[in-house]
Amino acid sequence: MKAITLHGTGDVRVESVPDARVVDPTDVVVRITTSAVCGSDLHQYHGRVPGLPKGVVMGHEFMGVVEAVGSEVRTLRQGDRVIAPFSISCGFCDWCRMRLPTQCSTTGRAVFGGRFGAQYPGGQAEAIRVPFADHMCEKVPEGMADEEAFFLGDILSTGYCCAENAGIRPGDTVAVLGAGPVGLFALQSAHLFGPSRVFVVDRVDYRLELAEELGGIPVNLDRGDPGEQLRALTGGRGPDAVLECVGHETPFAQAILAVRAGGTVSSVGVYVEPSIGFPVREAFFKDLSLKMGICNARNYIVPLMPLIQAGKLRPTRIITHTLSLDEAPRGYAIFDRKEDRAIKVMLKP
Amino acid sequence: MKAITLHGTGDVRVESVPDARVVDPTDVVVRITTSAVCGSDLHQYHGRVPGLPKGVVMGHEFMGVVEAVGSEVRTLRQGDRVIAPFSISCGFCDWCRMRLPTQCSTTGRAVFGGRFGAQYPGGQAEAIRVPFADHMCEKVPEGMADEEAFFLGDILSTGYCCAENAGIRPGDTVAVLGAGPVGLFALQSAHLFGPSRVFVVDRVDYRLELAEELGGIPVNLDRGDPGEQLRALTGGRGPDAVLECVGHETPFAQAILAVRAGGTVSSVGVYVEPSIGFPVREAFFKDLSLKMGICNARNYIVPLMPLIQAGKLRPTRIITHTLSLDEAPRGYAIFDRKEDRAIKVMLKP
Repeated sequence: MKAITLHGTGDVRVESVPDARVVDPTDVVVRITTSAVCGSDLHQYHGRVPGLPKGVVMGHEFMGVVEAVGSEVRTLRQGDRVIAPFSISCGFCDWCRMRLPTQCSTTGRAVFGGRFGAQYPGGQAEAIRVPFADHMCEKVPEGMADEEAFFLGDILSTGYCCAENAGIRPGDTVAVLGAGPVGLFALQSAHLFGPSRVFVVDRVDYRLELAEELGGIPVNLDRGDPGEQLRALTGGRGPDAVLECVGHETPFAQAILAVRAGGTVSSVGVYVEPSIGFPVREAFFKDLSLKMGICNARNYIVPLMPLIQAGKLRPTRIITHTLSLDEAPRGYAIFDRKEDRAIKVMLKP
Repeated sequence: MKAITLHGTGDVRVESVPDARVVDPTDVVVRITTSAVCGSDLHQYHGRVPGLPKGVVMGHEFMGVVEAVGSEVRTLRQGDRVIAPFSISCGFCDWCRMRLPTQCSTTGRAVFGGRFGAQYPGGQAEAIRVPFADHMCEKVPEGMADEEAFFLGDILSTGYCCAENAGIRPGDTVAVLGAGPVGLFALQSAHLFGPSRVFVVDRVDYRLELAEELGGIPVNLDRGDPGEQLRALTGGRGPDAVLECVGHETPFAQAILAVRAGGTVSSVGVYVEPSIGFPVREAFFKDLSLKMGICNARNYIVPLMPLIQAGKLRPTRIITHTLSLDEAPRGYAIFDRKEDRAIKVMLKP
């Protein structure tokens, strides 16, 4: 089958790889109808994730139709349209039972197309093997387009969990750092918690324009220090919550320096560095609450579905490009370089 | 009057200083009956707090009897026995109304005998000026000894708030890093939230002995990496909550590395460094919650008083030395060097 594989820094290829198949009796094979390039794929694309097998099939955002069903799968049939989370979990280990499926000890914290634990090929392909299928797959309601349900598997759930973790209360001021796909979903999600204002900080004009259209107040990094700008916009105090949606040392520190004393920084940016500087004195004297982490997306698929159906979350708005698998290398390049006003690049096998 | 003053690194002196007096009409003067040396005094003692005025009167833990009352004070009279928090707040600014008195904008986050904001002499003296007295002073019930109420002004409240911020739930496993005065109060406080086990990590034998007497399970740093020891004691997972009560880079990182995925690190150690290393990848992939900060002790004085009266918090147990003001330099030295099994050194004017 056709798949997108990674061979070195910036070197993604369209290749023929062995067909996805049922290996364990709890697997299904999903014929992929939609996949996409994620910001965290760029960490791999840039060679910042050591230990990846050469030629790994990329992609952890996908959905499609069940094509083959293992003998022990109970709840899925051929033809079911399903979405699955980016991280692979068994559903029965201690961590899964604690509702922390990203920590799954059975799979060793595996991610489709990623480094940790067992190796599972990714979803930028024509088909994919999904293990622990009864636990992993959620059926998508009829009448819901692929693009409506799609982002529940990763970035919509991640943006939502970023907002939820920030403990936003009605009337709060919120700042989102980063107007990429996750930041734009964090913005949409923040509005569900009743804030008075949501600022969105970035330096890419076309992304700030979309943030504004989605109810954000744009703050351009090129106009000065974000902490100073945000304090000026919040009566000198700083926002009650800062949602860090980038994943680098600079915005991490900016979030801590910008948030008001007693406020919360919620960070879902993916960090590949082992250690970064932490402004600990500021954090101490301002009574910082910091919630960070990889999103347990499996937990959010069911509760967020009705918010999409009700039009309170508008996932399709961030899609700027829909390309074929053959065009994936160009998709990576424009997404990486923020060319052609790219925000989210979808791939259709 | 007699007071303890700081003149340089390790140089505390018993000196005669101008008498405390009412300056603003909202002040009282308190004749001090009990004061103490705090772990954070040692930061000043070691010269780690730049910008301190030479000869500053030390001490932010004190209590005593109202001796003089400003003309606008409404709720206090001469002879009232009172306790006050270590940080000085007005009670009416935005921060105070948000119940974050340590951020008080009126006083500029001042602390008795400290560096920030307006300068207020400390409580290692015969008397002290307490501003905003109606807000700052809490009357101590008759029949409650000084030593029972005393620690509400700082370290008992700090230890309690460390435990509270950790979100401990019944059945949780908890680790306290540091068996100093704050750590021992964090241990006592943690038990109020129904944990199954509370580990206490230190390397000072006599402090671990007291921790054990107070219901902690001692973990000696000299026997190996605390994260490994704690994982071995918790079925490989790590404690659900880690209470960081030291305030240095090493225990801060140890706390993050030791806590279980999805768990909480609560840090109340006082940090004087602007920046330290932060194990961000571990924090990200384990879904860390981190709550840190200076304790808003004013908020805890009233609710914790009945827990002391009920015997559920036993503050006097940590007192190892009661010295006169004249002996304060020796008190600093033994507390600093952990000599003579020192845990908490009280000073009686």
